Amino acid sequence: MEFELIDQLKFSAPVAPGILLGIGDDCAILAEDASNERLVTTDMLLDGVHFVYDYDKKNAQSLDLIARKSIAVSVSDIAAMGGEPQAAFLSLAIPRAWSAEQAKELFDSFSKAAAKLNVSLAGGDTTSWEGLLAINVTLLGTVPKSEAIRRSGAQAGDVICVSGPLGGSLAGKHLTFTPRVQQACWLRKHCKLHAMIDISDGLLADLGHILQESGVGAEIFSQQIPITEAAKCIEDSQSPLEHAITDGEDFELLWTMPEAEYQKLIQIQEDFIEVHRIGTITQQTGCFLIDPQGKKERRGNEGYVHQFANHEN
Amino acid sequence: MEFELIDQLKFSAPVAPGILLGIGDDCAILAEDASNERLVTTDMLLDGVHFVYDYDKKNAQSLDLIARKSIAVSVSDIAAMGGEPQAAFLSLAIPRAWSAEQAKELFDSFSKAAAKLNVSLAGGDTTSWEGLLAINVTLLGTVPKSEAIRRSGAQAGDVICVSGPLGGSLAGKHLTFTPRVQQACWLRKHCKLHAMIDISDGLLADLGHILQESGVGAEIFSQQIPITEAAKCIEDSQSPLEHAITDGEDFELLWTMPEAEYQKLIQIQEDFIEVHRIGTITQQTGCFLIDPQGKKERRGNEGYVHQFANHEN
Repeated sequence: MEFELIDQLKFSAPVAPGILLGIGDDCAILAEDASNERLVTTDMLLDGVHFVYDYDKKNAQSLDLIARKSIAVSVSDIAAMGGEPQAAFLSLAIPRAWSAEQAKELFDSFSKAAAKLNVSLAGGDTTSWEGLLAINVTLLGTVPKSEAIRRSGAQAGDVICVSGPLGGSLAGKHLTFTPRVQQACWLRKHCKLHAMIDISDGLLADLGHILQESGVGAEIFSQQIPITEAAKCIEDSQSPLEHAITDGEDFELLWTMPEAEYQKLIQIQEDFIEVHRIGTITQQTGCFLIDPQGKKERRGNEGYVHQFANHEN
Repeated sequence: MEFELIDQLKFSAPVAPGILLGIGDDCAILAEDASNERLVTTDMLLDGVHFVYDYDKKNAQSLDLIARKSIAVSVSDIAAMGGEPQAAFLSLAIPRAWSAEQAKELFDSFSKAAAKLNVSLAGGDTTSWEGLLAINVTLLGTVPKSEAIRRSGAQAGDVICVSGPLGGSLAGKHLTFTPRVQQACWLRKHCKLHAMIDISDGLLADLGHILQESGVGAEIFSQQIPITEAAKCIEDSQSPLEHAITDGEDFELLWTMPEAEYQKLIQIQEDFIEVHRIGTITQQTGCFLIDPQGKKERRGNEGYVHQFANHEN
């Protein structure tokens, strides 16, 4: 594909308030507001690692799904801080063998995905090359000043919660999940959360990030971990529970909060807020899984990196 | 290379004021200041297109130079709006065949480049894959409220200026250029500029962007165009002047300003501000090159895309 064709391709996405200048100059310009802080996250999604673009269309992960996932993983990072997404900056490395129609389809897919996920496409960079499809999304969001929920605030005695069932995301959810922006913002406004992260590497791995950053430990009760139907249907050597605690890309929220805040939350929670209490933060470091008989098993941060990472595509 | 190794690699770069939280959470957090606006630019640099990583080291573009260029092109975009760079977000797709030493060298190169260019590395994403080295830099900068210099403000009668000699960048300058941040900020503070861009696609192409966005035309005087020694030394069918007006990646500033402002500028300019008056903005659209005999030649936006774009690597 020629560069001239790329130049003719345009994104059609609404420009949100606060974006003073979008695509078409050296930089985008965003307004600043001293009552807010700016959140920034960046994710690169690569063919053969985070998705498989199916050139022969026999087993297609459609460009719609690939574009949607590319933006949604960043939206989930913004949610994990309790923020709201605003402006996305999209870089595309497009295989030179693609036709103009394929490139147009990719642009259209991103326009649709951005609109669906309530994100403005405010800048980008597109190049064709000899390599495979590579996508980078940098997403800017906002959160009220000093209210961002970090990984580092968990305290001994905190209740540990997740926002939905876990495991088996590779069967489809990794492409179709809804980032928990609404839930995270509601939680930030209505409760005092100590720490939050989105589950991308797997429950144990991401809880491990919170524990490490906060200098604490955890006890997780295996019976209380919500497990997806997809995880229950996998026929392999791992139990559904194992899938739920080690599979990646669930993109549910994982947070900790004081007991009193948890008690308040379950009184006032609205229907769209799903809350599963799965364990307790402890002074003693290390992460322990406790079975229904009370048996404690120490578990590391073993997790999962990317669903296709071990495939040699 | 294994993901575990990537996780152990860290960037060492100073964290600048205004960056409340850098690498290590779901998002970075930046302070907002209502007296400023936020500038954002994103650039993807690809092996075989924007640089050639030389695996056998026989003709190396060193990782230091590749990292430096990757950040500098974005710094130049911030400069082109009259802003100052602040925080960079770096995504790396690293060939799986690389050794841990190579990856560490790349990280070190980026740490050094960021420090040299006065940019904080505030976030990133690193993945290994079967593809070639791909780098994405999203750079955030700041500019005082309403003072960003856009492409769209050129007016008939404006003087057209460039900040240095042009052409032949491929011989080396495309890797070693200094983004004109200091000059651009000085110009913004001391003069009234109507439009500005950095020359990345070539003088005619980038002037074309200003003309198109501003709805005006231009007359350029061929004798007044500063030409690099590198362009004068190229032995091919094009004249040094042709190279100066069509070669890309000079990363000099190109701006327009009213005649009275230009007259003020040449009175007050400091030593580090280089100013070459090369032409005039006209009401009539189209870009015309005028030779020393006064002969006018209409020139399109013919420019240059990327130095290696036509190489089949």
